[in-house]
Amino acid sequence: MAESFPMNGSNGVYSYNKNSSLQRSVADSVKVMLREAIIENLDVQTKTFVIVDMGCSVGPNTFFAMHNVVQAIKHKYHSTSPEFEFLVFFNDHVKNNFNILFDSLFSDHQKTYFAAAIPGSFYGRLFPSRSIHVAYSCYALHWLSEAPKGLIDMKNKRRIHYDGASIDVWNAYFDQFEKDMGVFLSARANEMVHGGLIVVILPALPSEQYYKIGYKLFTFLEPSLIDMVNEGILEESLVDSFNLPLYFPSDEDMTKVVEKNGCFSIERMEMTCFQSTIDAKSHIRHHRAGLEKVFNKHFGSKITDEMFERSLANTDELSAWLETEYSKTTRQLFMVLKCKN
Amino acid sequence: MAESFPMNGSNGVYSYNKNSSLQRSVADSVKVMLREAIIENLDVQTKTFVIVDMGCSVGPNTFFAMHNVVQAIKHKYHSTSPEFEFLVFFNDHVKNNFNILFDSLFSDHQKTYFAAAIPGSFYGRLFPSRSIHVAYSCYALHWLSEAPKGLIDMKNKRRIHYDGASIDVWNAYFDQFEKDMGVFLSARANEMVHGGLIVVILPALPSEQYYKIGYKLFTFLEPSLIDMVNEGILEESLVDSFNLPLYFPSDEDMTKVVEKNGCFSIERMEMTCFQSTIDAKSHIRHHRAGLEKVFNKHFGSKITDEMFERSLANTDELSAWLETEYSKTTRQLFMVLKCKN
Repeated sequence: MAESFPMNGSNGVYSYNKNSSLQRSVADSVKVMLREAIIENLDVQTKTFVIVDMGCSVGPNTFFAMHNVVQAIKHKYHSTSPEFEFLVFFNDHVKNNFNILFDSLFSDHQKTYFAAAIPGSFYGRLFPSRSIHVAYSCYALHWLSEAPKGLIDMKNKRRIHYDGASIDVWNAYFDQFEKDMGVFLSARANEMVHGGLIVVILPALPSEQYYKIGYKLFTFLEPSLIDMVNEGILEESLVDSFNLPLYFPSDEDMTKVVEKNGCFSIERMEMTCFQSTIDAKSHIRHHRAGLEKVFNKHFGSKITDEMFERSLANTDELSAWLETEYSKTTRQLFMVLKCKN
Repeated sequence: MAESFPMNGSNGVYSYNKNSSLQRSVADSVKVMLREAIIENLDVQTKTFVIVDMGCSVGPNTFFAMHNVVQAIKHKYHSTSPEFEFLVFFNDHVKNNFNILFDSLFSDHQKTYFAAAIPGSFYGRLFPSRSIHVAYSCYALHWLSEAPKGLIDMKNKRRIHYDGASIDVWNAYFDQFEKDMGVFLSARANEMVHGGLIVVILPALPSEQYYKIGYKLFTFLEPSLIDMVNEGILEESLVDSFNLPLYFPSDEDMTKVVEKNGCFSIERMEMTCFQSTIDAKSHIRHHRAGLEKVFNKHFGSKITDEMFERSLANTDELSAWLETEYSKTTRQLFMVLKCKN
């Protein structure tokens, strides 16, 4: 079973709920593309549309996205008729805080659809065969089911990700991504109706020799860990054995895994530059909301707290990188797949 | 919207989780009847069976029940083939602790079905049209959407339920039950496929002049409240304005509401005596798990605690009633409805 590291599902200062404005701006930026994709590519005949958000977290972004999907379908089928019905499944790991999700859903939202939750990893079957018309996944599929194995032997010591690492480390990460996406696509190929769509949005990297670029999205956390090792409050082997289970594919990577699976046609694949005016402190808080549970599990909450606090106190290098390099090296991938089966 | 008073969804000493053995014995007692009902009465053609437990609480009883339903369907259709798939929806109020439900579901259970949750009151639409094959509800439909209005005018002072009250109070409760069941059946009539089944199990009363019998299931709590009023620590008007939103129908009541709705045929309706060897203290703890939130909301947790503690310290009358009267006045209703639409 895939490892589960849900977003911080509380309502506190580091909660996903309060630190997901980046995802909100993502959802806004793809709203038009999503609408176009559904209008141009969805090819199903039904009176009950079944939609799923895979990796929904606790809201509110999932509600905006699902609202957009429903509106686009209504537009496409020229329907304001109550004959058309919508069932939306909110999917995330079993440990996701579905109680908060339901609370928000019922208090904030004028529902135009029936709403259900389906807990479990999307790296596996979730639904009966031929039951889904639109599957949507935003900023979730870059989470691998687990970090690649054997990275210590590849001399990825004192590193927590593949940035700055050897090509072997990058390849190990790609292999894990390829394997996970293979499982994802095979499961969806069974679950989706013919002509149904998968819409995927995730952070990505440009394809040309990308392993050579300095990609500091997460490595800004490494100096704090190394400092703690040098001060004797953290064992070096704990740092060596930790690797973030995140992969940022290129469009070439993605094309490769979709073609290997063979059940979906690529209707649209766009890499866009990701303009962000986020400052270093917000960047750290944002990543803390998404990552702290995976750090907690490995290092414990005390070391994790300390790591984020130290990083917040020492943001010069990160600020400079965000200002000059971020938009050069960071991409967003928007992909629409149609089920051929 | 219907009021929501979920079971105590913690893992503590008064949790539903640890005080639902009565419901478990109910599920065991109806296992054979449930199996027979599905084998004899279910009349649908599909490869994907969609089942819902309405009022599932947090488990584990819902898992046993859903397992039984799946097994009965497999037996009926002679299927161990993987071609047959099952999607089970767990339904309860939005405030139900679905996180605990999911935890138990994934840790204890070898799932033979896809599992989803659908939050919301069953006194309203939950699903798209014609999407459900079997709806099951065990010990949930005796919860009214709200207590009947106007009971203070009917001189139901110093009482928390209809036991010992005038016929007007009983009638007000029946009217609310009739209204709620009307909404329930209309919603299900839209949601269920032709030939699909609703299986209902709930506590009931014998029909003959039942308002005259002494039914102490809840009124054992009244003396503690009245004592607190007399001691000046609880306002009398708070007791007068409180009425438990629970109704225990007779088979005549149930026949009346089903026939009035008109969309379902009654395939089976059985009243059974409910043999229980429960002692007074277990009885109180059991009801605390189910009822404390409704008391908390009205009286606050301090008075509620005090009420249950005082009742636990003074169980002579309840013990005598449980020993001599309980089995005479308490029934369990098992009903199977088939969708005619």
